[in-house]
Order: sequence, then C-alpha cells, then structure tokens
Amino acid sequence: MGVSRTREVQVLGRAAGAPALDRVAVEEPLEIRVEGQALAVLLRTPGDDRELVAGFLFGEGLIDGADDLAALAPCRDPSSAEAAGAESNRWNVRLQPGCSGLGQRLEAARRRFTAGASCGLCGKASIESLAQVVRPHPSHAVVEASLLAEATGRAREHQALFDRTGGTHCAALFGPAPERALLGVAEDVGRHNAVDKLVGRMLLDERLPDASCVLWLSGRVSFEMVQKALLAGVGAVVAAGAPTSLAVALARANRLTLHAFAADGRYNLYAGAGLEEAEVTP
Amino acid sequence: MGVSRTREVQVLGRAAGAPALDRVAVEEPLEIRVEGQALAVLLRTPGDDRELVAGFLFGEGLIDGADDLAALAPCRDPSSAEAAGAESNRWNVRLQPGCSGLGQRLEAARRRFTAGASCGLCGKASIESLAQVVRPHPSHAVVEASLLAEATGRAREHQALFDRTGGTHCAALFGPAPERALLGVAEDVGRHNAVDKLVGRMLLDERLPDASCVLWLSGRVSFEMVQKALLAGVGAVVAAGAPTSLAVALARANRLTLHAFAADGRYNLYAGAGLEEAEVTP
Repeated sequence: MGVSRTREVQVLGRAAGAPALDRVAVEEPLEIRVEGQALAVLLRTPGDDRELVAGFLFGEGLIDGADDLAALAPCRDPSSAEAAGAESNRWNVRLQPGCSGLGQRLEAARRRFTAGASCGLCGKASIESLAQVVRPHPSHAVVEASLLAEATGRAREHQALFDRTGGTHCAALFGPAPERALLGVAEDVGRHNAVDKLVGRMLLDERLPDASCVLWLSGRVSFEMVQKALLAGVGAVVAAGAPTSLAVALARANRLTLHAFAADGRYNLYAGAGLEEAEVTP
Repeated sequence: MGVSRTREVQVLGRAAGAPALDRVAVEEPLEIRVEGQALAVLLRTPGDDRELVAGFLFGEGLIDGADDLAALAPCRDPSSAEAAGAESNRWNVRLQPGCSGLGQRLEAARRRFTAGASCGLCGKASIESLAQVVRPHPSHAVVEASLLAEATGRAREHQALFDRTGGTHCAALFGPAPERALLGVAEDVGRHNAVDKLVGRMLLDERLPDASCVLWLSGRVSFEMVQKALLAGVGAVVAAGAPTSLAVALARANRLTLHAFAADGRYNLYAGAGLEEAEVTP
C-alpha cells in the first residue's frame, strides 16, 4: 500500500555536533464513519487500516463478525484538504441491514463512557456492565511454562516498527498448544490500536480466536485491554508489563487467565486456577 | 483522603508453590459532569481527583484558569450503587457564568474527535486546528545538559506508586534554570491523567507554568502529550520514551523544545534550535 509507517527526522544527540537522522513512528488521525456518520477518530500508525477499523468496530460491540460488514472502504471527499494520492485517513463502513439492534448499538457506542446514568459508577459496575456482552470462560486456560518463557522473545522478532523507532506497542496471537503457532502480529503507536489491528485481521479472515489461543501484549494491561481480549475470545493474556487492579478483577470474574511482567525469564500469574476470583473485585 | 492507590492481590510466581502477594495500581472510572451533564469518563488511579478534573477541563480548553471554576465537587447520587463512604467516582463542575463562549466550547468538547467535518483530516490539519488555541513560543527554550542528565533520576525519587506496582506513569514539572526546582509530580495508570493531575494542581494553586519550566514525562510522547504541554505553557518537554512523528511536528511548529529517550545518560533533541521546523510537518 506504500504506507510510510516510520519517518526520518533530524535530531541532535547528546554529543551535539551536526544533526543526525533518527526514525520515529508515524502518528496520524483516522476517522471512522458508520453509514456516513462520524463515529470516532483514532490517532494511529498508518497501515493495516482496514484491520484497525474492523477490529475497532468489533471491540465496540458494533459487529459480531465479518458477516455484519456490507462495505468497508476508505472515502475521499473532493473538498478535502487531504493530498490526492495519499492514504485516506477516513474510512466509511456500511453494515448489513440485518445486523441486530444496530441503531441501539450505534447510539450506545456514541454515548460510551459519557452515559451519565444514575447507576453506580465504579469498578464493580464496569465489570457488571460487560457481563451483558462477554461470556465468562467455564474454566481458566493453562499457559505452559515454555510459552511464558518464549512468548516475549518470539513476538520480539516481528516488531519491525519497534526495532526502527523504539516507540510502538505490539500485540501477538499464539494458537493452541502444543504448537503455539504465531497466528498474527500487529504494531501501532497506540497499544489499543495494536490489539484492534490484530483482532481485525483475524475477523476479516474469519479466523477469530477461541479459548485455546493466547494474546501477547508488549505493554501494560488495563481494564480496556482485558475487555478486548474477552471480546476476541482468547483464553489467556500474557503481557510484558504490569496489570491494573481492574484488569485483574475483570480477568478473574470471567476466568480469563492473565500473566503479566512476562519478560526477562520471569512472570507472574494474576488470574488463573488457584487464585481467588472475588479477592480483587472492587 | 484515605484513597487506596494500590491494592494487594494474590499471585503465583514462576516458582509456583503457594500464592504470594503483589501490589497493583488501582484503576477506577471517574465521571466528569459539567453543570450536571456528563462530559467524559476517565479510567484513572483514585487520588488527586480534584486536580485531575481541573487539569482535564483545562486540557480540553473548557477553562483558562481557576477563575473559570465556580464549583468543583464530588457528587453523590442517593440512588447510586456506590458504597457510602467510598471515594466518589463522579465529580460535578460548575463554571463561572462569564466563562466566555462556554456553550460552544462545551459542545466542541463533546464532539471532540467525532467532528466529521469535511475539512481535511490529517496530521497537518490536526496541527492547524490547534493553532487557534495554542500560541507558539517566540523561540525554542534551551534545556541545560545537567537537567537532561538528572531529570529522570530526580523524578524517579518521587514515584511511590511505580515503586510499589511497576505499573504507573509519571509527570513532573521543573522550574526555571539554574535551580530547576521540582515544582510538582503526579502518577497515574494513564499517562494523560498524570499530566492532567500535575497541570490541574498548578492551575488550582494559580501557579500555571511558563516557558521557563520543563515538563518531564516517564513514557512516550504522542501528539496529545505535546498538546497538553503547549496548553500548560511549558517551554520544553523531556521524556524518557520515544516521540511520534506528529509529536515532533507539533513541537517544531510551536517552538516547544522536545527531548526524548532521556534515560540512562543519553537523550536526543527532536525539536529545538538548529533543527528544521518544516521538515517533519506531514
């Protein structure tokens, strides 16, 4: 697609002297329209935009799969200041008319996080509100020690953007044991975008993961990252960074296995068999 | 205020055996209401909520200073499921009636990033749209080598949350040279929140920084982080992490000095005297 995902810029290093060149990750806005109406603008690294849009819509609960998409295309406004020939920073989505409860879901997505309802607003309420759309796993998946030891290193081999910029996050998907094939990798300046690109790719290929799969994350694990993992259907998350309290509580409540600080040969299990489900529920 | 900012959870380490205890950073939603109407929900670490609300409103361009605030208070809904006695996760803000253009600014804040206007949507347009609210510095501030060498270490001494959890971001403000006094520090699971808490504290104290001050960031520098720095008025940003292309372009366009990768005794200058302003403008 000819997308430039990194850009060379002049820098002055500590030793000063003449400017040298360094590569930084490209960050550009991407507007997502549904049926011609603006839904959201993401700041993302260009590339895999189709996957990002599909994964974002899936993560917002607007679509359940590729079947719900009638069309997914970049749009160009003739009056737009966008340079002709450049990648489009605006995508329009048309959904299948049969897409159930569409109007309500669109409205809910627009009001997401600005609801202002009189119900309680706390970690417990946040977890309960997800119970309507996420089905808990029947039991915790077990991630074998070999994957825990190797996942970060194996994913690391596919982080071309990070290699060049040191400034991007990565999400990777490993398949069922014992092979644990690497099913996909995505990078972006935004860690949420990296997961959306990865899940969007699987969705468009009609290969959405199941509980036998493991999602690896290069960074920390917040509530929203666990939410994305649950919606995608994986059985476990292995993250190089730290988890938050709400991430641990949400994972335990839905029996999503959660390993974090998985780097440099160590790791902790924060949600899994042998740990109390209720302990950290706020 | 008795806010628990970390929580002990059971974990199983690599050596397995009996569960041990680990501390994770607390993440909870916070709803901001303006004149009783919901504006946004942030996922944040409880504590310094008043500062966070003030800093968020300032960063969204809703207020120019503490004078614009008529009232800023946690609200409790009797029908709420929130536990009595718990910290409130909902704050209401009343603005001074004279707060200029309030209706428009509120509406603009609600539509932020979902504008759907026909104007171009790209990095260049994003930078130009900020030109209405941000005044460029007349020239680039110079950050002396001693602060560049010491900032990360000095800020590190005040990261109590990070020490205990390894899972939080930090923002710190250094005053004018040559003293470079540490004027404030804030931590949060969200890097945006850390800056909002820090700037909110300065705003409530009516000590908003000027171009002689330096904002230090524990993580990476995106467009939105440079935007917050420009709105706060600092002359320079020093970050431990990597910058994005749009962050570099926005900093150069407004002559905000930007150092990144400032850790382990090294650093690069990405925006400053001697570097081309136009080079990375998308």
